[in-house]
Amino acid sequence: MSGALPFEVGAMWSILGVAIAGLLYAVFLSRQILRADAGNQEMQAVSNSIREGAGAYLNRQLRTIVVFIGILTVALYMTAALAGSGWQIAVGRAAAFLMGSIFSLTVGQIGMRMAVIGNVRVASAAQRSFGEALKIAYRSGTITGMLTDGLGLLGGTIIFIIYGKFAPEVLLGFGFGGTLIALFMRVGGGIYTKAADVGADLVGKIEQNIPEDDPRNAAVVADLVGDNVGDCAGMAADIFESYEVTIVSAMILGLAIHPFNLKWILFPLLVRAIGVISSIIGTYYVRAFNEKENAFKSIKRGFNLSASTSIIGFVLIAWFYVHDIRLAIATFAGIMLAIVTNYLTEYFTGTEKAPVKEIAKSSQSGAATLLLSGLASGMESSVWAIIVIAFAILASVLIFHNTPSMILYGVALCGIGQLTLTGNNIAMDAFGPIADNANGIGEMTHMDKKSRQIMADLDAVGNTTKAVTKGIAIGSAVIAAVSLFGAFGDTIKVVTGVKDFFVDVSNPYVFVGFLIGGAIPFLFSSMTIRAVGRAAYLIVNEVRRQFKIPGLMEGKVKPDYAKAVEMCTTAAQRELLGVGALAVLSPIIVGFIFKEAALGGFLAGVILVGQLMAVFMANTGGAWDNAKKTIEDGLYGGKGSDAHKASVIGDTVGDPLKDTAGPALNPMIKVINMVSLLIVPLIISFKKWSPFIVIMIVVLLAIVGFAIWYSKREANPKIG
Amino acid sequence: MSGALPFEVGAMWSILGVAIAGLLYAVFLSRQILRADAGNQEMQAVSNSIREGAGAYLNRQLRTIVVFIGILTVALYMTAALAGSGWQIAVGRAAAFLMGSIFSLTVGQIGMRMAVIGNVRVASAAQRSFGEALKIAYRSGTITGMLTDGLGLLGGTIIFIIYGKFAPEVLLGFGFGGTLIALFMRVGGGIYTKAADVGADLVGKIEQNIPEDDPRNAAVVADLVGDNVGDCAGMAADIFESYEVTIVSAMILGLAIHPFNLKWILFPLLVRAIGVISSIIGTYYVRAFNEKENAFKSIKRGFNLSASTSIIGFVLIAWFYVHDIRLAIATFAGIMLAIVTNYLTEYFTGTEKAPVKEIAKSSQSGAATLLLSGLASGMESSVWAIIVIAFAILASVLIFHNTPSMILYGVALCGIGQLTLTGNNIAMDAFGPIADNANGIGEMTHMDKKSRQIMADLDAVGNTTKAVTKGIAIGSAVIAAVSLFGAFGDTIKVVTGVKDFFVDVSNPYVFVGFLIGGAIPFLFSSMTIRAVGRAAYLIVNEVRRQFKIPGLMEGKVKPDYAKAVEMCTTAAQRELLGVGALAVLSPIIVGFIFKEAALGGFLAGVILVGQLMAVFMANTGGAWDNAKKTIEDGLYGGKGSDAHKASVIGDTVGDPLKDTAGPALNPMIKVINMVSLLIVPLIISFKKWSPFIVIMIVVLLAIVGFAIWYSKREANPKIG
Repeated sequence: MSGALPFEVGAMWSILGVAIAGLLYAVFLSRQILRADAGNQEMQAVSNSIREGAGAYLNRQLRTIVVFIGILTVALYMTAALAGSGWQIAVGRAAAFLMGSIFSLTVGQIGMRMAVIGNVRVASAAQRSFGEALKIAYRSGTITGMLTDGLGLLGGTIIFIIYGKFAPEVLLGFGFGGTLIALFMRVGGGIYTKAADVGADLVGKIEQNIPEDDPRNAAVVADLVGDNVGDCAGMAADIFESYEVTIVSAMILGLAIHPFNLKWILFPLLVRAIGVISSIIGTYYVRAFNEKENAFKSIKRGFNLSASTSIIGFVLIAWFYVHDIRLAIATFAGIMLAIVTNYLTEYFTGTEKAPVKEIAKSSQSGAATLLLSGLASGMESSVWAIIVIAFAILASVLIFHNTPSMILYGVALCGIGQLTLTGNNIAMDAFGPIADNANGIGEMTHMDKKSRQIMADLDAVGNTTKAVTKGIAIGSAVIAAVSLFGAFGDTIKVVTGVKDFFVDVSNPYVFVGFLIGGAIPFLFSSMTIRAVGRAAYLIVNEVRRQFKIPGLMEGKVKPDYAKAVEMCTTAAQRELLGVGALAVLSPIIVGFIFKEAALGGFLAGVILVGQLMAVFMANTGGAWDNAKKTIEDGLYGGKGSDAHKASVIGDTVGDPLKDTAGPALNPMIKVINMVSLLIVPLIISFKKWSPFIVIMIVVLLAIVGFAIWYSKREANPKIG
Repeated sequence: MSGALPFEVGAMWSILGVAIAGLLYAVFLSRQILRADAGNQEMQAVSNSIREGAGAYLNRQLRTIVVFIGILTVALYMTAALAGSGWQIAVGRAAAFLMGSIFSLTVGQIGMRMAVIGNVRVASAAQRSFGEALKIAYRSGTITGMLTDGLGLLGGTIIFIIYGKFAPEVLLGFGFGGTLIALFMRVGGGIYTKAADVGADLVGKIEQNIPEDDPRNAAVVADLVGDNVGDCAGMAADIFESYEVTIVSAMILGLAIHPFNLKWILFPLLVRAIGVISSIIGTYYVRAFNEKENAFKSIKRGFNLSASTSIIGFVLIAWFYVHDIRLAIATFAGIMLAIVTNYLTEYFTGTEKAPVKEIAKSSQSGAATLLLSGLASGMESSVWAIIVIAFAILASVLIFHNTPSMILYGVALCGIGQLTLTGNNIAMDAFGPIADNANGIGEMTHMDKKSRQIMADLDAVGNTTKAVTKGIAIGSAVIAAVSLFGAFGDTIKVVTGVKDFFVDVSNPYVFVGFLIGGAIPFLFSSMTIRAVGRAAYLIVNEVRRQFKIPGLMEGKVKPDYAKAVEMCTTAAQRELLGVGALAVLSPIIVGFIFKEAALGGFLAGVILVGQLMAVFMANTGGAWDNAKKTIEDGLYGGKGSDAHKASVIGDTVGDPLKDTAGPALNPMIKVINMVSLLIVPLIISFKKWSPFIVIMIVVLLAIVGFAIWYSKREANPKIG
């Protein structure tokens, strides 16, 4: 803590206190949930199946991850030690990596376990009142939100208290820990959830013509687990990662402004602390003031309260502590970015808006026109999303036009602002699968009509909140990546001692890196789409097999839910090794072969194409999904019509795009940027080709080649 | 001609002679075709309908284009005059623009007219022998090829003879002329061909269940015309553009190496002259040596002969004239790039290869899995295509590693090499619609079975040759754009007099330009896909209306073919205004607002994303098309099976992707680069914001905004 002024010391301990307060709030909420009624025995039986399935998934994934954490803790130590950073930094970075991984795992694990504890209680509460059901569902989700908030802030603050101005170097480890777990959670979760979903639907709804969530379908529990795996654990880990990564880059860039004045480093942490307080206030305020209120309205009211509180907060800090109101404006730009992104997502995927209406209309001339209409609309949505991001960056350019050295810091603050209300955002997101699961439990246990209606309404609102936050996840990934990209340049300047560093794409070397970088998101998407296809095929066969068991269709014999869960879990873990290898190793290979400037070009390509493809796939899939829903609600002939059949094809194509391939690009973009930041000092220090590097690159290329080959295996494997 | 050595003078006149020889060869071939038997009266009636339709399209398009040419001739004069280049350059550039436009129009007009003269003669020849039919079909296509080759070389050489080392500045006008026409031809043609195709198929094949090319279908002639419009005129204009643009950039970059030694500028022209000679030899060699020979084999034999001849030729020039064998190696790398690109296209879209087989297989579980499999495979194809381009650039880096200033010149030579065999490539491409049309004439006039089989075989081979050359068109567009990008940097250095110019994407301004650039291909694709949907809808209604005419279905009344042709033509012209405005104005707006470095970032984004999307859409569509064909040939239940229905959906989605949106990106990439190169001196000279610039930007933004809005009008308009 050398060089800190008394005020800074006090501020830091206060931030620590706020982080802990956030966590205590999560504990407080979880006690509330646990006290609530858990429903009758039948409901508990279903809930237990989901819980066991979720537990099996989490445990199986943990086993895979632990191995990676072990290897990478050593690797992280090496990245610092080999670059000559001193043993304190090296040990700190490895320990921070461990902490980052564990925190991210904790968010995923506890969040998801609380979600599966919450769902049955929501179902039970729906029998009593709408207000209670809403409160339980939202607060179960808030637990994940506050864990993300609290642990993210806690980690960053602890490291800062210990390391002071050396914190950024150590924080890289913390960020990478979160990043790695997010990759696993997002990609593995994405494959799991779609394999289960497609497997359950294809055989159940289409072949056997039984309803969704029918208890005779062996994959129905896997499908319910999948909603949690994808939308709760995957999403939380993804946002947790952006949360950390924006702190890391803001600190690196803040340090670059003035190496002896800590206020630029402290400001992001203070903003985040205000965010935690605002989220506590806002989320606690979410409740139904009467039985007829719209759930979405209540949730939005809480969000608005949090937003206002936090804006007031960081104006005060910027004015009275940093004495530079521009910092508050840059942070505010981030909040605006989040709001506009949400609006764009809603516009391009909402059932009430023109694009989805047009897509639904084009179903009248068949699936092909519906698909084309969706593709055209999805491509356009990507254009606006990227233009909004461009404006956010421009805002920073304008705000700091007098001090150009602060522009990139401004972009990082934009990311800090964007994720200020992480508590609310994740609460909104996790609310989706909890309401969905409660509805599923209602269907499987044949609950009364009134309660079912309450849960169906909550489920519908959950779909909206879930969709809206998806835009935030992608937007924040890109802003985080852009600030990491800025930090990348700064790091190179520090390491080389050269004042200027360019990523000059008119240089042929850099251009080559740039082209390869742009190709990576296409390769990644191709691999994840194929992975879903393969995994779904296994589940389809398993469900078909179980339907043939005598007595099962009559409801006399229970299907083996656990088997389907296990198959999804195993398939997801196996599939993500290939894409994981690609994400981690591609920047290392490009960096060592083409050097740091080309690696910069590579990063630029990854960010640009990654953003475009992520939004395109997410919104195209979301729009097809909702086009189907509007038709199912009676448009153009409703269920069973030709228009409906066309829309089902659109929805099925869109599912892996919006829930697997699209979201998987967020952690991919950040992992690649994070790895680049970690290895760039090593790349610079290796001025000459040694046999060791040649061997290493050959081995890494072989691994990536194997991963790609592996991802292209026969998509429809024979089952023994 | 100041400063040229005697040898150079002789060489230039020789090149001019070769260019004229290429044109004379085209005249010679066209006389051969015209002498051939034109079939019986019935066949001629159909052929006349197609010819009239083609003529109507060409004339209607000409009227639109002439206005643009007029405006832009003045604008081109201004770009040079305002930048202070002197009146000789300004007048030269405007005149060159006029020449470029006229040459490109000539290629499109004569090429297409020869194709529709050839088709009926192929049908007639098929009644006599396979060998004669092949010869007439291929030679009709060769005429377009040799016109492209000959006029491209002629224009470049004339300008060089007149302007000497000032030629590059004037050549910009020549290149832009070709570029503009290519945009019109490619985009307009792409919209036309798919609107007619979808319109004819949706009503004829699907609603009325009558065969393709049935004479009762009002859109059938429009469809046959469309094949020529898209694949013959559009493709030829596209390649003509790349042909010119690679010459322009090679000359600009060659001049940068040494301002007083013309050999670097002369080398590209010499290589191209060799290409013309090789193409004459190789194309004339294409014939069937016996009646059972495979047509593809004959065509390939001619290609190989041309390739060997030209390789020998430019090794000799590099060795004995330039005394630098590296130039031959770089050019050779271009030929290799063309061959590998062809192979990749064939692999990802060929019926015999794994990807199409897998896509066809996935049709068994429905349209959704077929679509996903196609998307995954198309995304992957894009990865390999871009990696091959990256390797081509790397090759240049390695070849010229001793003289880094020559690396970009090496990339331009790669583009020169890639298009050496333009004569053969376009012949192969135009062969496709000619054989297709002959087959259509056979079907419409109920020819005998043996002749029909010959034409069906030629048609199938035509589909392959057409698909293979599509890869070349995209690959050459990107290499051309990369060299233009290099020339862009050089131009800035010359104008500013500053030794170094960076497109540093780690600079926030440049990054913003870069993000916007990446968004453009998505916007463009979204607009063109919608345009096809809108135009197709009009045709569908028209065909439906005509089917209701009493006596038409019984064959007693002839449908009004001309009406459908005219509707397609008008719709295509109207639709392309929006996308044309976007392509021409977006670089001007970005350049003036964000300045030259950000414009560089913008170009990088356009090239990267344009290439990825173009290949993705072309190959995905091509693979779906061929998956349908393999199923129609009997796989998985053949025609009428569920698998077939699924594959028809895939094919219909793929059609606008592969024939409109994908190919439209090629001229878009080049137009944007060309416009940037033209305006960058003006951007640099406007150091301060003046009211004039502000007004200009607002007006341009309004035009682009209007164009985007226009492209989003109700996709299914009501018909009065």
